Amino acid sequence: MFNLFSLKGGLSNVEGFYCDGVNVGMKSSEDGDVAFIRSDVPCEVTARFTSNKFQAAPIKHYQKYPKDFKTDFILMNAKNANAMTGEQGIKDIESIFDELKKYYKAQNPIMSSTGVIGYRLNQEKICSAFEKFDFNAKNSDKTARAIMTTDSFKKELCFKIELDDGSSFTIGAICKGAGMINPAMATMLCFITTDAEIPKADMEELLSEATEGSFNRISVDGDTSTNDTIMLLANGLSKSYNKEAFREALNKITFELAMMILKDGEGANKLVAFEVNGAISEEEARKASIALSNSLLVKTALFGEDPNWGRIASTIGASGVECDDTKLTIHYDNLLIYSNEQRELDQEREKKAYKIMKNDSFKVTCNLGLGDGSYTSYGCDLSYDYVKINAEYRT
Amino acid sequence: MFNLFSLKGGLSNVEGFYCDGVNVGMKSSEDGDVAFIRSDVPCEVTARFTSNKFQAAPIKHYQKYPKDFKTDFILMNAKNANAMTGEQGIKDIESIFDELKKYYKAQNPIMSSTGVIGYRLNQEKICSAFEKFDFNAKNSDKTARAIMTTDSFKKELCFKIELDDGSSFTIGAICKGAGMINPAMATMLCFITTDAEIPKADMEELLSEATEGSFNRISVDGDTSTNDTIMLLANGLSKSYNKEAFREALNKITFELAMMILKDGEGANKLVAFEVNGAISEEEARKASIALSNSLLVKTALFGEDPNWGRIASTIGASGVECDDTKLTIHYDNLLIYSNEQRELDQEREKKAYKIMKNDSFKVTCNLGLGDGSYTSYGCDLSYDYVKINAEYRT
Repeated sequence: MFNLFSLKGGLSNVEGFYCDGVNVGMKSSEDGDVAFIRSDVPCEVTARFTSNKFQAAPIKHYQKYPKDFKTDFILMNAKNANAMTGEQGIKDIESIFDELKKYYKAQNPIMSSTGVIGYRLNQEKICSAFEKFDFNAKNSDKTARAIMTTDSFKKELCFKIELDDGSSFTIGAICKGAGMINPAMATMLCFITTDAEIPKADMEELLSEATEGSFNRISVDGDTSTNDTIMLLANGLSKSYNKEAFREALNKITFELAMMILKDGEGANKLVAFEVNGAISEEEARKASIALSNSLLVKTALFGEDPNWGRIASTIGASGVECDDTKLTIHYDNLLIYSNEQRELDQEREKKAYKIMKNDSFKVTCNLGLGDGSYTSYGCDLSYDYVKINAEYRT
Repeated sequence: MFNLFSLKGGLSNVEGFYCDGVNVGMKSSEDGDVAFIRSDVPCEVTARFTSNKFQAAPIKHYQKYPKDFKTDFILMNAKNANAMTGEQGIKDIESIFDELKKYYKAQNPIMSSTGVIGYRLNQEKICSAFEKFDFNAKNSDKTARAIMTTDSFKKELCFKIELDDGSSFTIGAICKGAGMINPAMATMLCFITTDAEIPKADMEELLSEATEGSFNRISVDGDTSTNDTIMLLANGLSKSYNKEAFREALNKITFELAMMILKDGEGANKLVAFEVNGAISEEEARKASIALSNSLLVKTALFGEDPNWGRIASTIGASGVECDDTKLTIHYDNLLIYSNEQRELDQEREKKAYKIMKNDSFKVTCNLGLGDGSYTSYGCDLSYDYVKINAEYRT
C-alpha cells in the first residue's frame, strides 16, 4: 500500500531537478520562449515520439544517441518546430549545444521544439538565453509557460508517493498542447521528471502504458504534428521505488494532463468522453470511439448543444465497424437517447438531453450490442474560435 | 466522333421525363420540400449508395426490389432523412406509395430522402404533395430546389450528345449536397436521367467509373451520411447510343456536379485540388491526397489564406504513407513552395504564394518522388460559417 499526494509547483518538488524559462524576444508576450530542465546527476531517459513520418530535427537528434544513453539536460524552445529543416536542422542543434557548453557542461543534452514548421532556428536568439538562465532555479511555472504555443493556460502537475516502508518519491510534469491533437500520439510536448529509483525497463513499460491510456485517447482536430514528444527522466535520488505506486501515479499524471490539453483544445468549451461498448473487438470499439471524437459534425453539434443523436449514429455507421441499428443503444450520461424500442426522442427526454449538453463535460455511451469490445476516447467541441485560431496561427 | 452541347434546364430536356417540386409546409422557405421525377415508359435503373452501415430506410426499400427491376417514378423529400427509423421507416414508405397510387399508377416507385436523422416521415404532409404535383410538368428548377438542404444554390446540368450518324441523346441531372461530404461516397443525392438507349451493363460500369472520378474525390468535412445516393435512369426513348460519348458526358456531368457541391461546401469559399504524385502506389497517393483534403489544419490555413506549407507536409507525414523529406516537392499552382534544396520560403516566393492563395481555386501538388502512384482529390476551406451552419442545423 502507498499514499499519493498532490503537490503544487510541478517540476520544482522533484529532488535534484532544476528548471527555468526566459524570454529572448521570440514571443511577443511576457512568457518565456526558451527553457531548460536539468538534473544534478545523469538520468535514465525514455521517450515516445510522434507517429508522423516527417519527424522534426530534435527527434532525429535524440535518436542519434546510443540506446542506453543518460542525460542531465533538456533545452526547449517555442515559436519554431525545427521541422522539415533537413540535416541543417540537426546541425543547428549541435551548434546550439556547443555554445551551451560555455555556460553549462551538459551531458548528452536533448533539445525539444514546438512552433511553426519549415524554418531554421534562430540560433543567436536561442543562445542568448544561456546567460539569462538561472541554472540553479526551480522555476516550474516559467518553464511550463515557456513551452506554451496556442495554449491558454500552463499545464503542470506533481504527485508525491509515500510508501509503507517510510520512503517516498516524487513525480513532476509539465506539458503543452492545444491543437493538432489526435489519438495517434496526441500532439504535445510533455516532460516528466522523477527522483524514484525506477529501473529502465519499468520506465519503458509504464510510459507506454500511460501514453496509451491518456494522450493516445484524445482528439482536438485529428491532426498529428511532427514534434510530439513525451519524455520521462529519472535520477534515482530518492532511493525509493514501488512499481504499482509509480504506475498509478504516472497513469494519473498523464491522464490529467491529457484532460487539461482537451479542456484547452483550441476554442473548445466542452470535454466529452465517447465510450463504445459491445463491439465485436476492442479494435472495433477503438475505431468507432475515435471516429466519434474526430467527427466534425459531432463536434459542431456539441458546440451547438444540440442533442442530435443522429450524427452520433451516422458516425458509427460510417466508421466501418460491425453494427446493427436494432441492437445499438446510445446514452448521454445516464439518459437513454436511442434504442430500437425508443427511436424518436420524446419531448421529455429531449429536454433532459438539452440539459446534459449544457454541461462542461459529459459522457456519450454507445453500446453496439454485439460483443465484449470496449474503448473510451475523449473529444471536445469545435467552435468559431478553433477556426479563428488556426486561420491566424502563423501570422 | 461526337459533339457534346451543354443545355440549360437540367432534367427538362430529356425526352419522356417529367418532374415537379412543391412545398407542403416542411420547409419554411418558398422552395419545395417534396418532388418527383417520372418517365413515360419504364426505365432501367442503376444506383450507388452510401458506405455507411446504417443505410436509411429508402435505400433499404430500394434494395427489396428484384435485381433487374424497372421503375418509372422517384419520389423525393427534404427535411427528414428517414434514417435510423427501423422497419417502421420502410413501412412508412410503403404506405406513402399506397396513397400515391390513387394519383399516379407508379411502377416500382423509389423513394429518396434527405434531412434530419432519427424521426419518422410526416406521411400526411408528404402525401398532401400528390394533389399539388403537376405530373406532366418538366419543372427541373423546382425539383432541384426541393431536394436542397443546407445548399445555397440549386445544382442541375444537361448535356446533349450528337453522334455522327445524325442521332442524338440527352443526359440531365440534379443533385444536392453541401455538408457531410467525404470521399467514401460524397454525401449527396444525385439523380441522372437519360433517353439514351444504353445497355444495363454499361449503365453499371459507367456509373461506377463516373462516381469514382467525381463524388468519391471530394471532401467538405470527412463525414459520410446514411442517405448518399447516386441514381441513373434510362428510358431509351431517343433510340440513340454510343458508349464513349456517354462515358464522356457522364464523367463530365458527375465531375461538374461534384465541383458544385464543393463550391457550395458549407461556409466554403475556396476550391482546392490536392494532387499527389510520385507515391509508391496509387493507393498511397489516394491516402495522402484524401488526408490533405480532410485535414482541419490545412482547411483552416486555406481559409486564412496563409501559405503555411508546413501543414501540408505534416499532414502527408501523418497520413502513414511512405515519404522522405529530402525527395518531397510541394507546388502551389506552378510555384515551387518546398524542395530539399529550397526549404525556407524566401520573401519573394512567399509573396507569390499569398497571391495564389487569394484565388477562389488553385492546385496544391505534392510529389513524393518515390514512384508512379498518382491521385487527385478536391477539398475546400473551413470557415466560421461551417461551424455556424452545423451548430445550428437541426434547430
